[in-house]
Amino acid sequence: MNKRGFASDNNSGIHPAILEAIQNVNIGHVAGYGDDIYTQNAINEFKKIFGNEIEVFFVFNGTGANILSITSSTNSFNSVICAATAHIFVDECGAPEKASGCKLIPITTKDGKLTPELIKPQLLGFGFEHHSQPKLISISQVTELGTVYEVDEIKAICKLAHQHGMLVHMDGARIANAAVSLNLPFNAFTSDAGIDVLSFGGTKNGMMFGEAVIFFNKELAENAKYIRKQSTQLYSKMRFIAAQFSAYFANDLWKINAAHANKMASVLAGKLVEIGIPITQKVSANGIFAILDDEIRDKLQKEYFFYPWDESNHEVRWMTSFDTAPEDIDSFCKALEKLLNE
Amino acid sequence: MNKRGFASDNNSGIHPAILEAIQNVNIGHVAGYGDDIYTQNAINEFKKIFGNEIEVFFVFNGTGANILSITSSTNSFNSVICAATAHIFVDECGAPEKASGCKLIPITTKDGKLTPELIKPQLLGFGFEHHSQPKLISISQVTELGTVYEVDEIKAICKLAHQHGMLVHMDGARIANAAVSLNLPFNAFTSDAGIDVLSFGGTKNGMMFGEAVIFFNKELAENAKYIRKQSTQLYSKMRFIAAQFSAYFANDLWKINAAHANKMASVLAGKLVEIGIPITQKVSANGIFAILDDEIRDKLQKEYFFYPWDESNHEVRWMTSFDTAPEDIDSFCKALEKLLNE
Amino acid sequence: MNKRGFASDNNSGIHPAILEAIQNVNIGHVAGYGDDIYTQNAINEFKKIFGNEIEVFFVFNGTGANILSITSSTNSFNSVICAATAHIFVDECGAPEKASGCKLIPITTKDGKLTPELIKPQLLGFGFEHHSQPKLISISQVTELGTVYEVDEIKAICKLAHQHGMLVHMDGARIANAAVSLNLPFNAFTSDAGIDVLSFGGTKNGMMFGEAVIFFNKELAENAKYIRKQSTQLYSKMRFIAAQFSAYFANDLWKINAAHANKMASVLAGKLVEIGIPITQKVSANGIFAILDDEIRDKLQKEYFFYPWDESNHEVRWMTSFDTAPEDIDSFCKALEKLLNE
Amino acid sequence: MNKRGFASDNNSGIHPAILEAIQNVNIGHVAGYGDDIYTQNAINEFKKIFGNEIEVFFVFNGTGANILSITSSTNSFNSVICAATAHIFVDECGAPEKASGCKLIPITTKDGKLTPELIKPQLLGFGFEHHSQPKLISISQVTELGTVYEVDEIKAICKLAHQHGMLVHMDGARIANAAVSLNLPFNAFTSDAGIDVLSFGGTKNGMMFGEAVIFFNKELAENAKYIRKQSTQLYSKMRFIAAQFSAYFANDLWKINAAHANKMASVLAGKLVEIGIPITQKVSANGIFAILDDEIRDKLQKEYFFYPWDESNHEVRWMTSFDTAPEDIDSFCKALEKLLNE
Repeated sequence: MNKRGFASDNNSGIHPAILEAIQNVNIGHVAGYGDDIYTQNAINEFKKIFGNEIEVFFVFNGTGANILSITSSTNSFNSVICAATAHIFVDECGAPEKASGCKLIPITTKDGKLTPELIKPQLLGFGFEHHSQPKLISISQVTELGTVYEVDEIKAICKLAHQHGMLVHMDGARIANAAVSLNLPFNAFTSDAGIDVLSFGGTKNGMMFGEAVIFFNKELAENAKYIRKQSTQLYSKMRFIAAQFSAYFANDLWKINAAHANKMASVLAGKLVEIGIPITQKVSANGIFAILDDEIRDKLQKEYFFYPWDESNHEVRWMTSFDTAPEDIDSFCKALEKLLNE
Repeated sequence: MNKRGFASDNNSGIHPAILEAIQNVNIGHVAGYGDDIYTQNAINEFKKIFGNEIEVFFVFNGTGANILSITSSTNSFNSVICAATAHIFVDECGAPEKASGCKLIPITTKDGKLTPELIKPQLLGFGFEHHSQPKLISISQVTELGTVYEVDEIKAICKLAHQHGMLVHMDGARIANAAVSLNLPFNAFTSDAGIDVLSFGGTKNGMMFGEAVIFFNKELAENAKYIRKQSTQLYSKMRFIAAQFSAYFANDLWKINAAHANKMASVLAGKLVEIGIPITQKVSANGIFAILDDEIRDKLQKEYFFYPWDESNHEVRWMTSFDTAPEDIDSFCKALEKLLNE
Repeated sequence: MNKRGFASDNNSGIHPAILEAIQNVNIGHVAGYGDDIYTQNAINEFKKIFGNEIEVFFVFNGTGANILSITSSTNSFNSVICAATAHIFVDECGAPEKASGCKLIPITTKDGKLTPELIKPQLLGFGFEHHSQPKLISISQVTELGTVYEVDEIKAICKLAHQHGMLVHMDGARIANAAVSLNLPFNAFTSDAGIDVLSFGGTKNGMMFGEAVIFFNKELAENAKYIRKQSTQLYSKMRFIAAQFSAYFANDLWKINAAHANKMASVLAGKLVEIGIPITQKVSANGIFAILDDEIRDKLQKEYFFYPWDESNHEVRWMTSFDTAPEDIDSFCKALEKLLNE
Repeated sequence: MNKRGFASDNNSGIHPAILEAIQNVNIGHVAGYGDDIYTQNAINEFKKIFGNEIEVFFVFNGTGANILSITSSTNSFNSVICAATAHIFVDECGAPEKASGCKLIPITTKDGKLTPELIKPQLLGFGFEHHSQPKLISISQVTELGTVYEVDEIKAICKLAHQHGMLVHMDGARIANAAVSLNLPFNAFTSDAGIDVLSFGGTKNGMMFGEAVIFFNKELAENAKYIRKQSTQLYSKMRFIAAQFSAYFANDLWKINAAHANKMASVLAGKLVEIGIPITQKVSANGIFAILDDEIRDKLQKEYFFYPWDESNHEVRWMTSFDTAPEDIDSFCKALEKLLNE
């Protein structure tokens, strides 16, 4: 048995219901590349959530989803505005620039969240050929700092974007955790708030692999099938992503999983505060950012692998996931307390 | 139950032993992105086959494997020489050009196989800055026309390439079928024959997804991990590709599956000849190319989905797979005969 | 004094009237990047030729013009169909693939000219996401083999393209030579024949540098100014390209230069035939393709630099230019005859 | 006569000695693309300055030079660190990202100058495949804010870069103005200070067009000729760039021009201070940054075209050039004073 820890929600495995769904569709032959009934069913699940006026494209992973979203929404001479902490800026090894040719403009934030005030100074140079043309604002929900945008915050960003003829992308790698945190249906803070294109993640919340790009602005989807293929993200045996999403939406599995992860984060954060560990960001979903003495950190990492977040600041990150057990938290906190008391 | 047909070997599902292997590693938490024991074990399986002096990178799919292979082996000002029928030229929506910037130079062949004689006229312009610099020759084993290169044929191409300071890539989407066809171990017609980098496929032979890029020329792998990430092909829950490959090599599953598919193709081809259907390419692996009257084709496609290959020539393609049953062949041939006799 | 030869029309210098025009606008300050009266005047010259419904963008060189044309007309998942001898395929070191991401599909021709019959077999896979989507046909006028398309030949290609929702680009690096050869105004075989976008060259016909991209299909020009800048082809002191074009059109300089070059090619070809040198392509403009014994070629190259064209075939290329003098031809032919008689 | 103003040093024309040099080499035929004696001579001029261990490549313009420099020094998965005001970040419409695939990391500075302290926080993630790998630091000399790096400041940046296996590029669009400002030869603050690759500009200081990329780190030049061609920056009639550079270095033309421009900036700045216009950056070369009331600015722009720099700050930019006359300054200041007194 591999020990469960708090390094990342992608260190968890596959929820049993997801694996069962894969097994259930593993019968006989099915046309490849999404031209099958399982894929159609999964798309219909998304239409139940977001309405019929969407286009859905399944891809392998989060970076693939972001690339398809960005490349479908921009020309190479455009710029993409994002938080300096955004996954697309920090954690994708330059995939967005390589694939789209666009310039990424990082904005420093205190909590991972963009605001109209932070964005506005970058909205310049429109029509000036020397300047990358601002076209897309990308926000992460949940942010990479574990915070969650309120609906009104998203609406304000979308309004600003649309006033300037721009578009808004949401990186929803942890969108289920956000929905639970906000206690709102997915559409309330995406399509209804003005988002144009969404990377809808599942892998971090119990799926084996597979994400979806949802185009609320259908014009953007015009060439998405070619872009998906050309960007290496078209899966041949598509039924096995589709079946996962169908299972993910059945019986509210997505919600149960995300609610559990969020709750575990809340519990862990509470214990950390008790122990005296300073928490640096509001714990709204399943991520905890905290200050930890370097020496303690190094010792704790020998028992529990996890990532330093900002070494200059002694900040670390812990993530809970759908399979975090209360006893995992107890063991972790005991190990931490022991080190603190040495 | 979905009917089994002959459209493509990727219309088949997952071999039960592969799915079981996935389930077996679905325990607890494991570090992401390949930094885990399962991935190490799978890499070791490849080292048992090809020796220790290789570098192995797992990716999601065949196009991803080809992109990683090509981009690692070239600069943007290079050209890649391939058969005009090559998957990288015809079936990847321009992914190689987009990702690498290289020019692809297609060569017309009669059987999908390049030869030194066919390649030589393109080996020009070295050092001439106006000309894309020839750098990589890419061959498919099995070819897209179902034929298989002999070892000596591969050696001759590799020798020619290396004499010109060039490299050779093998697209091994169906490499297991080739190994069975040649009755040789994998290394005999890859590393030992001079291949520099190999896309090693599994999805078409019973795996769920996941391919491997094997660098025999380790210098080419220097930046592969960054290229894999930047090209969106780094899987977070890597253990689930790794476990598949371990199961694929255990108990010769790869060989049993490929041998069966090849045998079924041979049986089907035999029956087609009996029925009077002209076969256009030597049936060396699991693909059959045949001439079929357009009207018959259209009617048959209503019962069995399959692809026309060259409409100008009334040529169609049929593929067998690891799960093709003899009765599938019987039913198919009966349906065809019935149409022919109408 | 540098000896005049027949290696290339770009080995010639600047026509005195062009240099004078540069000098004439070298007064005081002028806004950069084309926002000036000289640029406006030059654009108006093009509008006199092609009508007002065009968009004109000046660039530095021919490859820059082709890149702007292609990138403005395609998405990265498109393919561009061209002759296997096309400059964009053979002589631009892969610039089109790198800049546009597109696949180039080379078609073998006997004379450098595409025809509907040659193109049609490549017009497939529309809507099929695995296949690069055919979008642009690019023809060279004059071709790289010195031949010239008739108006009807161009119309037939454009009609075919438009029937398939495709576009046609003309690489007019030697368009003046073509106009003289056809004895037609520029518009007769470009805009009026259905061409969508034109690389209009001047450098090979007496200009110092500078080409123009003319969009007859104005929709394609929507983003051209950004693409020009991003592809490094926006000149700061634009008046110095503009003034050249104005001088080029004044007093029919373009026509006088091209007519002279064409005439000189005709004269040279006549003498070569007399000497007994086989000419391999129809001499319609200012290029001559001929068979020359390798030994003679090597010796002649010591006196006159020129390019072998197809070494497998002992074929060489000679070009005349606006400044070729009759005595240059005499000297060259004498040198050749002397070598032949040795 | 076009009025001389202060919008940009590229609004000026061609120095007569440059134009004369062009005329002087406009004789007969010369091999194209730099394979000629004029090009060799110009390269030798650079070797007199920087020593023999350099590689020199001429290109059309500054963006072309920067693209060649960056693309030769990086892989697509690298990042390039630069000031947030850098031309490569702000004024090239994303050309660096499109051409190289790299991520650009902008750093906010107070004066356009990077420092080790500003750079260090970005030197992280080495070897971590999720992170664009820091590879190149790009500095502008003169900076886009008119300031000039001291030799020791450059050495400190180069030392830091090399300690991390990184490289340093200098964008020397105004390098002559910097040399004059520092009263140092070019090599003192480039090759001798540790710079690896230099964009050496001339267009803004009296040349017609043409820049040079100088590789001090010759390994970086290995593929530069192909990259130059593929990036559309290879000029066919190369002698006409080469002759300009030879004239530029003859009789210290570069120095006379730059010294004049710098002096005129100093004079103008002095008068502006007298008039009561606040200067925001140290005037070290030929650029002046000042605060100007919006209404005054709008009126003044009707007489003299110039650029606002930072509208949020009421900041404007004025540039002097090699041909700025004292009376131009007088007229401009009078016009400004008149508006101020209205």
